[in-house]
Amino acid sequence: MTDNQNNRRESDLSAIMVIFGGTGDLTNRKLMPALYNLVLDKLLPEHFAVVAVGRRDKTREEYLNDIYASINKFSRNKIDDSIWLQLKEKIHYYQFDFTEMNGYTGLNEFLNSLDKKAHTGGNRVFYLAVAPEYFETIVQGLQNSNMAKKQGSWSRLIIEKPFGKDLITARNLNNKLLEVFEESSIYRIDHYLGKEMIQNIMVLRFCNSIFESIWNNKFIDNIQISLTEKLGVGTRGGYYEHSGAMRDMIQNHIIQILSLVAMEPPINLKTDSIRTEKQKVLEAIEDITPEFLKNNVVFGQYGPGIIDGNPVPGYREELNVPKDSSTETFVALKLHINNFRWAGTPFYIRTGKRLGKSSAEIVVQFKDLPNILYFKDQEIQEPNLLVLRIQPNVGVFFQFNTKDFSTHNGIVPTKMDTSSFSPTQGNTPEAYERLIYDILRGDATLFSRWDEVEAAWMIADRLIQYREQKRSQFPNYDAGTMGPIRAFELLAKDGRKWWHV
Amino acid sequence: MTDNQNNRRESDLSAIMVIFGGTGDLTNRKLMPALYNLVLDKLLPEHFAVVAVGRRDKTREEYLNDIYASINKFSRNKIDDSIWLQLKEKIHYYQFDFTEMNGYTGLNEFLNSLDKKAHTGGNRVFYLAVAPEYFETIVQGLQNSNMAKKQGSWSRLIIEKPFGKDLITARNLNNKLLEVFEESSIYRIDHYLGKEMIQNIMVLRFCNSIFESIWNNKFIDNIQISLTEKLGVGTRGGYYEHSGAMRDMIQNHIIQILSLVAMEPPINLKTDSIRTEKQKVLEAIEDITPEFLKNNVVFGQYGPGIIDGNPVPGYREELNVPKDSSTETFVALKLHINNFRWAGTPFYIRTGKRLGKSSAEIVVQFKDLPNILYFKDQEIQEPNLLVLRIQPNVGVFFQFNTKDFSTHNGIVPTKMDTSSFSPTQGNTPEAYERLIYDILRGDATLFSRWDEVEAAWMIADRLIQYREQKRSQFPNYDAGTMGPIRAFELLAKDGRKWWHV
Repeated sequence: MTDNQNNRRESDLSAIMVIFGGTGDLTNRKLMPALYNLVLDKLLPEHFAVVAVGRRDKTREEYLNDIYASINKFSRNKIDDSIWLQLKEKIHYYQFDFTEMNGYTGLNEFLNSLDKKAHTGGNRVFYLAVAPEYFETIVQGLQNSNMAKKQGSWSRLIIEKPFGKDLITARNLNNKLLEVFEESSIYRIDHYLGKEMIQNIMVLRFCNSIFESIWNNKFIDNIQISLTEKLGVGTRGGYYEHSGAMRDMIQNHIIQILSLVAMEPPINLKTDSIRTEKQKVLEAIEDITPEFLKNNVVFGQYGPGIIDGNPVPGYREELNVPKDSSTETFVALKLHINNFRWAGTPFYIRTGKRLGKSSAEIVVQFKDLPNILYFKDQEIQEPNLLVLRIQPNVGVFFQFNTKDFSTHNGIVPTKMDTSSFSPTQGNTPEAYERLIYDILRGDATLFSRWDEVEAAWMIADRLIQYREQKRSQFPNYDAGTMGPIRAFELLAKDGRKWWHV
Repeated sequence: MTDNQNNRRESDLSAIMVIFGGTGDLTNRKLMPALYNLVLDKLLPEHFAVVAVGRRDKTREEYLNDIYASINKFSRNKIDDSIWLQLKEKIHYYQFDFTEMNGYTGLNEFLNSLDKKAHTGGNRVFYLAVAPEYFETIVQGLQNSNMAKKQGSWSRLIIEKPFGKDLITARNLNNKLLEVFEESSIYRIDHYLGKEMIQNIMVLRFCNSIFESIWNNKFIDNIQISLTEKLGVGTRGGYYEHSGAMRDMIQNHIIQILSLVAMEPPINLKTDSIRTEKQKVLEAIEDITPEFLKNNVVFGQYGPGIIDGNPVPGYREELNVPKDSSTETFVALKLHINNFRWAGTPFYIRTGKRLGKSSAEIVVQFKDLPNILYFKDQEIQEPNLLVLRIQPNVGVFFQFNTKDFSTHNGIVPTKMDTSSFSPTQGNTPEAYERLIYDILRGDATLFSRWDEVEAAWMIADRLIQYREQKRSQFPNYDAGTMGPIRAFELLAKDGRKWWHV
């Protein structure tokens, strides 16, 4: 993918990465192991430093010891000390409370002096690895101390979802960010977009004539996007109670995947060309009418049940969840994209917690052939399916019909699955490694542009309002099942079913 | 596939199978092991007998001992004596010289009396497992003794290629056969059609919307049919000298495969519906003009060389081959099928002996995408390929492009191959087992109809005449290579290459 930054000085990858929340979970579990992997893969620029900002009083030595332990624990391989040696030199710990506005000047001075030693030329990556309520505070601090925009260097702001709680709060947050950073310098991480298979969607579609030729409503019967989890909310009940499946999964990950699967080929591979096509998909989604909400949307909340043979509590019994919670832990949707490519081909979407299976996949079901020849004489069980497996397995599954070689006349579905044998798929780099690499290169392809976020909220808001008015009878599915009966009926009434292959 | 015999008494599978050439190679190596497998798979009718006709003086016991040894040697599994017991009861040996016209009456009486014991109702399968020069003699004998057509029962004649040496001799032979048998009772075996993968061509095409949708000149760049052998002519130099690759492979197997790959969907799966579509393909093959012959045909003959590390003689050094032989052991062709489906998509055909690889496969190469997006920025090495592997491996190979998961931005071809892992493909029944079963059921789908044979000869005759006039400089390829340079140039001048995947 191409760097589409206009400012050519931005092709300089040298930078200081400032991590707010330097002692937090995200830093320990994801960011530091990702940085380690970037050193391992020789993808970090020569001039690079990390400044971890934390409230706690620690020496650099103590901080490095913590990070060493984290990388050892969360990295894909056992730590290699020679690689760690290269990384630790680049890591600094800067103690300050980011809610104290007068502390930013000191940070700025620290960074400026580090620039001289590390030859990082004033470039900054500000990674907000903190709870979203602090986004505005930190950005305000950066603005006050003039750290965000400087002559002759670049600054990028990295935030993670949630981007607001609804359209209004998202707009307010975004307006604040835009006071300080340009839109092209704001990197909104959707960690799903860092997953290999998500990136592979575009390659599969636009690098294979066999798929691109039939990637439309003439040949595709329906597309299913399933992001299902066996896990419950665990200790995150407090967060989840205000999020629900809609804000946790649909508004971001699933709408991103939907737009990548459905978009028109972009005119080139530049970030904005791709984002423009993704945005057009969202604009073409059918109107969310009361009729639509009534017929095409299923909400669910798990009750107690059995997962992997063990009894688990219902959502309302989880920590920090009210006994009468009406938060949805499951959503199923059917929607149409009303453009020339997709009119008439439904997209079925499903996500939920405490389901019978943990997986993320996209199933493309091709149309049946006319009811003649083999489809007439034989029992044809299975249509052609192309499944993009995102997790836990990564790969492509393809199902087609062949003669049954064990009998004289039967026909059987033949299943091909790259995730089981392709030698190229083993070394999947962690999503964050890819994302940090892209941030340094100024490639925003895998991040969300504001208008995408806004369009996603417009859809999600309608659904969330509907769920709030509706007050469904919850719980309505047992933990360990695949969700409420109505989620099955959603497809059954169209003569279809959810595929598990 | 459906039995399309009009005469419903033919649905009675009971029959005596009379094998002329009962002590010959074909009987020992193929027919008897096939019959054994049919017993094993419980596919033989209850009332069934085999009468092996041979010139040699043998008791039934001696004959059965020979057959037992043959099945043990050539069958896919070790012989199971309980299965053999069932088969041996059905096998009889009848000694007579089939060139003696007055012997047929005795045979007829033997069969009629066997009918009574075996309850075979007068039905006959006459299998001519003899050299083709005896076909007319035997058919004459059957006619003289009124064995071919009888009231209230059916008779079928089975012959193997070659069906004549050219169009004239084939027509003469056919006219003779038609004096005695109806066209619908003549089963011309092309043992290639008995191969699982050949039968699978129709299933793959007409049972998968993903393939059928793109099976035409809009999506397919070219199709390659390669039937290559490492073997030389061995002891069959005398036969091969008058056959050559044209008569041995092109006129029958390859033209059959070509027509199955290229035909329109038949209106149903009845034998004649399929044959009609196959026939239309042959009629749509471009005219064999002098220009065509000059540009699109390559003949070859192997010289000495190395196969699997061992030196092997050239064709002219083989047993019973003249030192100045001009017989072709290799043919490569490029041809177009001038109908709406295929105009502009070339078919490349290649067959030969003493090549570097033994395999039979059909490679469908799909068109490249326009030179944009990934095709512009990255080096895309490989187009989409669908390979139908016929032998030695049986299965489907499919190649498409994915993101290279081991790097950040690369694209790699991903290869899926059912022959390496599909559990349903292991138990491939021998081609003859299937063919005999079909003969008993009266299903002629996998056999050649006269007009197909005739159309194939019309094409082959022109090529053979051209080769005879041309007197190429032979030998022109070394044993162990993939044929003459010009066979590579045939594709290279179109910007293509032969695929070996």
